[in-house]
Amino acid sequence: MTTFTNTRRVRIEWGDCDPAGIIFYPRYFEIFDASTAMLFERALGMTKLQMFKSLEFDGFPLVRTRARFLKPTRFGDDVAVDSTITFGCSSFEVEHRLGLKGETCVECSEKRVWVIRDENGRLKSHPVPDAVRSKFGK
Amino acid sequence: MTTFTNTRRVRIEWGDCDPAGIIFYPRYFEIFDASTAMLFERALGMTKLQMFKSLEFDGFPLVRTRARFLKPTRFGDDVAVDSTITFGCSSFEVEHRLGLKGETCVECSEKRVWVIRDENGRLKSHPVPDAVRSKFGK
Amino acid sequence: MTTFTNTRRVRIEWGDCDPAGIIFYPRYFEIFDASTAMLFERALGMTKLQMFKSLEFDGFPLVRTRARFLKPTRFGDDVAVDSTITFGCSSFEVEHRLGLKGETCVECSEKRVWVIRDENGRLKSHPVPDAVRSKFGK
Amino acid sequence: MTTFTNTRRVRIEWGDCDPAGIIFYPRYFEIFDASTAMLFERALGMTKLQMFKSLEFDGFPLVRTRARFLKPTRFGDDVAVDSTITFGCSSFEVEHRLGLKGETCVECSEKRVWVIRDENGRLKSHPVPDAVRSKFGK
Repeated sequence: MTTFTNTRRVRIEWGDCDPAGIIFYPRYFEIFDASTAMLFERALGMTKLQMFKSLEFDGFPLVRTRARFLKPTRFGDDVAVDSTITFGCSSFEVEHRLGLKGETCVECSEKRVWVIRDENGRLKSHPVPDAVRSKFGK
Repeated sequence: MTTFTNTRRVRIEWGDCDPAGIIFYPRYFEIFDASTAMLFERALGMTKLQMFKSLEFDGFPLVRTRARFLKPTRFGDDVAVDSTITFGCSSFEVEHRLGLKGETCVECSEKRVWVIRDENGRLKSHPVPDAVRSKFGK
Repeated sequence: MTTFTNTRRVRIEWGDCDPAGIIFYPRYFEIFDASTAMLFERALGMTKLQMFKSLEFDGFPLVRTRARFLKPTRFGDDVAVDSTITFGCSSFEVEHRLGLKGETCVECSEKRVWVIRDENGRLKSHPVPDAVRSKFGK
Repeated sequence: MTTFTNTRRVRIEWGDCDPAGIIFYPRYFEIFDASTAMLFERALGMTKLQMFKSLEFDGFPLVRTRARFLKPTRFGDDVAVDSTITFGCSSFEVEHRLGLKGETCVECSEKRVWVIRDENGRLKSHPVPDAVRSKFGK
């Protein structure tokens, strides 16, 4: 099985935080969604927009997510997000770990499917192309 | 010149507010965008999704907005948004007034253009169809 | 064990949706967060803002969430969110079911802790007050 | 009059964009809000969180904003935001210019007031402290 990890830094902004002064948790999922996109961008050398144009690809919608919130983060925090992908056939899982100064704040596991549009424009699952998979590892 | 007004009620949510305990102002623009869509829905009797399918219509992107913030709102506030539209030829202006218990909290003026896609898929301005305009009253 | 259910209607807006034309999934968590707040508002007869003022209460941060996405929703959809709460001692779980025309689109299970601030302003878990619990039925 | 400019780069994300495939315009105001905060961070050498702790400062709420949208941006775009501040007495104005590959996409002008809390916890305007102003240049 192929795995691949990417790390990126994210600033928690004032507008990400709620009246308790800590991040409003749906913002974490915005961060994780962008982290998965960035993981593909790093491996494939193209943005998600280019993926739509160049690959047999019409998205990788989420089918399941789980997250545990261990420590809150605040505006001004520069967090690190480590994202590790593992491929199945037409699906893949990404484990995100969001940490601050070495301490884990959030753990998230997401499962997505690779989809293409059929002749009627409907999204259906499709095997992750080998040309994609091969960029993620040996 | 044609004008038409719609009013809707909106709840300010916890997640709309920032660490100062008041609404994070970009959320107002989400409210105003939905208020403009609702104004068309009320006048035309169809959702924006149906407008794409039934009308010569590919969107009404914003070209200019201005807003004044007079009083803050807080989570749990049920505000009223009055939206008044005035049509030009290929464009229209919407004046939004967001109030709480009769007091104006925000005034916003937006200008949008009616667009369709040309043969290359590019968006270009187009006169607001008479079939649309007529639903807003003479 | 006490359980209590609340249902509310939510409009999926244009700005909640992404370039695939379907809802951007972090928006579901904004909806679920507001649904949990509304569930307390309905049971207690006060908004979350009033809870801060009237109760031994400084929030109910999320410690864990899980969601499954079964069918996408689109702008203009009016969905129903059923939220059922079950209390532990200092924590509670809420099961959200978001449906469209009778079909389940998303299932979400969240666990939260009831917290108060200690003398240093730090948040710590605290038993859900009996005065709160009793409003949710025996 | 004192002016000071800061530039930062921002990635437009998938989740920032709407079903038309372009950025949903309220996201620009999230970007501009963070750009104003970053401008102060660069000048003062402290985050907004530290400003609350170290300065006579309880926020700089927006009182007025105006924006013109000249060209759309898309997910994957790396835009540059130039923010220039000009101080009045208890207020300041920030001009934001968001550009892509040298072309201006959005121009925004915002006016904010420097506020502190009075003895009743209410926010009131207050002259920008000289210690702040002086960091922005002579």
